[in-house]
Amino acid sequence: MSDSAGDLGEFGLISAMRAVLPAAPLAQVGPGDDAAVLTTPDGRVVTTVDVLVEGRHFRRDWSSAHDVGRRAAAASLADVVAMGARPTALLIGLGVPADLESSWARELAEGLAEEAGLVGAGVIGGDVVRSDTIIVSVTAFGDLEGRSPVLRSGARAGDVLAVAGRLGWAAAGLAVLSRGFRAPRVLVNAHRVPEPPYAAGPAAADAGATAMLDVSDGLVADAGHIAQASGVEIIIDPNCLVVADPIRDAAAAYNADPLVWLLAGGDDHALLATFPKGATLPAEFTVIGSVRAAKTPGVLVGDAPYAERGGWDHFR
Amino acid sequence: MSDSAGDLGEFGLISAMRAVLPAAPLAQVGPGDDAAVLTTPDGRVVTTVDVLVEGRHFRRDWSSAHDVGRRAAAASLADVVAMGARPTALLIGLGVPADLESSWARELAEGLAEEAGLVGAGVIGGDVVRSDTIIVSVTAFGDLEGRSPVLRSGARAGDVLAVAGRLGWAAAGLAVLSRGFRAPRVLVNAHRVPEPPYAAGPAAADAGATAMLDVSDGLVADAGHIAQASGVEIIIDPNCLVVADPIRDAAAAYNADPLVWLLAGGDDHALLATFPKGATLPAEFTVIGSVRAAKTPGVLVGDAPYAERGGWDHFR
Repeated sequence: MSDSAGDLGEFGLISAMRAVLPAAPLAQVGPGDDAAVLTTPDGRVVTTVDVLVEGRHFRRDWSSAHDVGRRAAAASLADVVAMGARPTALLIGLGVPADLESSWARELAEGLAEEAGLVGAGVIGGDVVRSDTIIVSVTAFGDLEGRSPVLRSGARAGDVLAVAGRLGWAAAGLAVLSRGFRAPRVLVNAHRVPEPPYAAGPAAADAGATAMLDVSDGLVADAGHIAQASGVEIIIDPNCLVVADPIRDAAAAYNADPLVWLLAGGDDHALLATFPKGATLPAEFTVIGSVRAAKTPGVLVGDAPYAERGGWDHFR
Repeated sequence: MSDSAGDLGEFGLISAMRAVLPAAPLAQVGPGDDAAVLTTPDGRVVTTVDVLVEGRHFRRDWSSAHDVGRRAAAASLADVVAMGARPTALLIGLGVPADLESSWARELAEGLAEEAGLVGAGVIGGDVVRSDTIIVSVTAFGDLEGRSPVLRSGARAGDVLAVAGRLGWAAAGLAVLSRGFRAPRVLVNAHRVPEPPYAAGPAAADAGATAMLDVSDGLVADAGHIAQASGVEIIIDPNCLVVADPIRDAAAAYNADPLVWLLAGGDDHALLATFPKGATLPAEFTVIGSVRAAKTPGVLVGDAPYAERGGWDHFR
């Protein structure tokens, strides 16, 4: 049995985690000083923070520490690539109970390291404190490499709407877990560890994307964020949404509508973007709709507003 | 009576906080998109994260939301100036219970805004989630303006040791509160809101500081961090430590040794630095000791190791 976090102490815990975390290639000063120093070749830095709380964003009986680490890193890294930037580094804020096995923290670090490694990013520092429930705060950094950041506000009438990555998989996986099952694994794993299409973010920027975000609240809700910020109406064509076999099968088994997972489920961290009509889309993107002028910004699915609760509010 | 965080919802809460948070002059993209874009004139960015947890770092019956905001910002901003950088921006991760009055979150934001305003920094984004206890994660950013970062590892034999800012005030204030009192206010307030000597950080770098950190674990413990990183012995001269009247009075009233607060108390966020002998120190700094070669790095107070538990480990 491994030591507890309390046995190891703050500095022991940091040392155990640091041993498995990769250095950031752009770090001039890494972990261990008052602050890190990160080189910013572009002259700007893209940065974002996401906080995951045990019991709200993950459960220890549903996800391993490694899964939580990957998911925490993915949530922030997806935000960086959704601006059209290449991720470079992470800062980790961690709160853990004193009686937590220290191996949990080490495996969390291994998960963070694995996900960061997918994009060549490293960890440049962090803070470890005691907390009754586990909290993981991940600040991510990215470099725009000369690109203009792709905002939510740039969609224009006439643009096409396209998505890269999965829709509905994490929501279907959560539905499976919530019913007490552990299979199909492919869905459960999608809830545990999202697979954001990291390379598609900078590629979309290079291809002229006019607006982009990562789908974390749900397709309709996040399309709504683009619609509001851009002052346009977005029409999602449900015929363009492909329901994968595992999702169709799970929906049939639970007598559920699979489209609800695709339209309202978050946490897959797909990238949703708009492109000028006629633009050559990066290979990862599939057209799923269009953008038109509107007096009242909003989202239609087919020819009607979407009736299901679309979007994720942590307090509702 | 104000609405609860749950009544307002995630987006309402963010909107209420954003209304009082100052924009960062260097922000190209501020709050409201997937990530922020911060201009980095130096070509590098200094960054650090600190996490504050209710019940561990603050109590709602001892500190107002405004106090907590100021303190959370100060903890991270002090780390930035301790590198010799000028603070530019903050990212805020916030976890709050659904039944928390929304006014608490707004007042927290006002405290964050006030402290950031002291150094001309703004808020470039954040994340708000639900959590059973309040957690505040502050990522701070700074610009080195061409300076070399001042690390913990640069102290050399022959250097002088100097401090800017207060020592022992926050610890004395915590002792007062722990005994159930609310006065003397000057000490209680020092616990609630530290006063880091922000300008002294870049000034120390300009004056040739060889090593620097902010005193958050305690003078002896943090001097030990410099000693370890630099491979030197640091001698603190207790005769150079001035015990202010309120601290002397409180210590007398509690039959305590005021030097313990000065030597082992953290959370004032003073700046501790080493300078080459003969350097002209910035006005904020007072010499309190010296640096010499040592086979075994460590800290002496006068001519002996310090016997009190020096340093703050969140798990002990």
